[in-house]
Amino acid sequence: MKECKTVILGSIGIDDIETRLESKKAILGGAASYACAASSFFTETGMMSIVGEDFPNEYFEKYKSFGINLEGLIVEKGGKTFRWGGTYDDNMIDRVTNFTELNTLEHFEPAVPASYENAEYVLLGNLAPATQISVLEKMKNPKFVVADTMDLWINIAREDLMTLLEKIDMLMLNDSEARLLTGEHNIVKAASKISAMGPKYVVIKKGEHGAVLFEGDEIFIVPAYPVAHLIDPTGAGDSYAGAFIGYLSNSDSAKIQNIKKALYMGSVVAAFGVEKFSLERFESLTIKDIENNFVGLKNMTQI
Amino acid sequence: MKECKTVILGSIGIDDIETRLESKKAILGGAASYACAASSFFTETGMMSIVGEDFPNEYFEKYKSFGINLEGLIVEKGGKTFRWGGTYDDNMIDRVTNFTELNTLEHFEPAVPASYENAEYVLLGNLAPATQISVLEKMKNPKFVVADTMDLWINIAREDLMTLLEKIDMLMLNDSEARLLTGEHNIVKAASKISAMGPKYVVIKKGEHGAVLFEGDEIFIVPAYPVAHLIDPTGAGDSYAGAFIGYLSNSDSAKIQNIKKALYMGSVVAAFGVEKFSLERFESLTIKDIENNFVGLKNMTQI
Repeated sequence: MKECKTVILGSIGIDDIETRLESKKAILGGAASYACAASSFFTETGMMSIVGEDFPNEYFEKYKSFGINLEGLIVEKGGKTFRWGGTYDDNMIDRVTNFTELNTLEHFEPAVPASYENAEYVLLGNLAPATQISVLEKMKNPKFVVADTMDLWINIAREDLMTLLEKIDMLMLNDSEARLLTGEHNIVKAASKISAMGPKYVVIKKGEHGAVLFEGDEIFIVPAYPVAHLIDPTGAGDSYAGAFIGYLSNSDSAKIQNIKKALYMGSVVAAFGVEKFSLERFESLTIKDIENNFVGLKNMTQI
Repeated sequence: MKECKTVILGSIGIDDIETRLESKKAILGGAASYACAASSFFTETGMMSIVGEDFPNEYFEKYKSFGINLEGLIVEKGGKTFRWGGTYDDNMIDRVTNFTELNTLEHFEPAVPASYENAEYVLLGNLAPATQISVLEKMKNPKFVVADTMDLWINIAREDLMTLLEKIDMLMLNDSEARLLTGEHNIVKAASKISAMGPKYVVIKKGEHGAVLFEGDEIFIVPAYPVAHLIDPTGAGDSYAGAFIGYLSNSDSAKIQNIKKALYMGSVVAAFGVEKFSLERFESLTIKDIENNFVGLKNMTQI
């Protein structure tokens, strides 16, 4: 059995999405879908998630077409897959949640198959911190662990989150989440407080404005790749994190230069992802396209 | 009489500013104050503005301490200086205007002294487009003209603004203003529409998220210099524009490489400016400090 060097924990959902221009029902979504697809451009990626028996066969096939390893994907007998519906504001940033049906996600206990146990690069998507910790404890030799989190866990599971933060190398979170976690509006101050909670690296994501990497007092500014034709921003942060861990794993060393490049790759891949709904844009995307835009993004920032 | 190579048109105001932490009354403000002080680090700068007889002598002295040329500053007999009062939200971005007293600014007709007529680098701050045009028409040999604008003129003087846009090299404006001017939410599309209105270069400013330079299809992403100790954001955009035109003038060629560096200088100088109220931070600032942070900002962005 082939071992996976890169593994990703996250949700899988069936989404209904409304935007000003176009709406879609029952499309493939969830953090693990976006992150694993994005990572798969750089490395074979093992997925840890859960779906119900209702999960359409074509979606399994889609994962396979990206070469995603599905040994860690639980299909719950009689269960229903997580569902989410949201409507985007005209600015394509703010959104309201129309419904959330947790279904199988409610009691999800991730499986870590033997082929994942030696994974070196681990992305813990924004499930409950206790779930993230349970996965991490089964990893025998993690070299670089990134975790994402969200408002909900900061509010209701802060203690578990603090325990998690001591065990990971990098926390990736939105600016609003960084403010909620630290009580600091200023992101430089917020990042400093988060570093003190444990992670060596803190990445604060600012959506269309890019992201900022903090390593102690060192700051690295990551631009967003400019997007002229934004169709659906859902999953952009997950694609960003997935491309990051996939590229870093492929570079095979978590040295700072590779971390910076991996964050650029995150920007590039996330920007492709939002040009269509669900994983559609990734289906026609090639590593050559990604490399071209990586060079393009470098040219947009180097003086 | 010494000729000025760099001239700046803009308002001078006496401001009352309230922030969550600290408030100040009757401090020196206005676009011309910030822009000229910022420009003065790089080149002798001529100011075109107006004040009333009430304008405190110490503020004239302050301008002189920056080496600003005041031949174009009108002191209106019996007039009162423009006054503005505002309160910042806790996020230190959004603000409400508490009062505006236009006073002398209401009927301001800029003087262009003989020593300014041959200026090559011109910044037209956000006064009425007709006023901006009247200054430009008196310039005999402008090499590079930047204009700023604002919501008010987009709404009530669009025709004049369109005439101005055909005469300038660069328009610098906020993202919200770019959206208002073009009806496009997406800044890539908005910039493209503004280019079609005339200016070769469009700079869309995004406050703490930096700025983006557009030259046709070419995009250059300008990071904001991260600020940990933000005291008063008033005038940051004006300092940005002033440092830009001052550096460009000093580099003595509007080639793209210099334009990019000048935008970085804008970020660096603007970030210093917001560390204190009014021009206070600039009073202790040296060109060495600016150069150090320029290198720092480069290091934060180069991969």
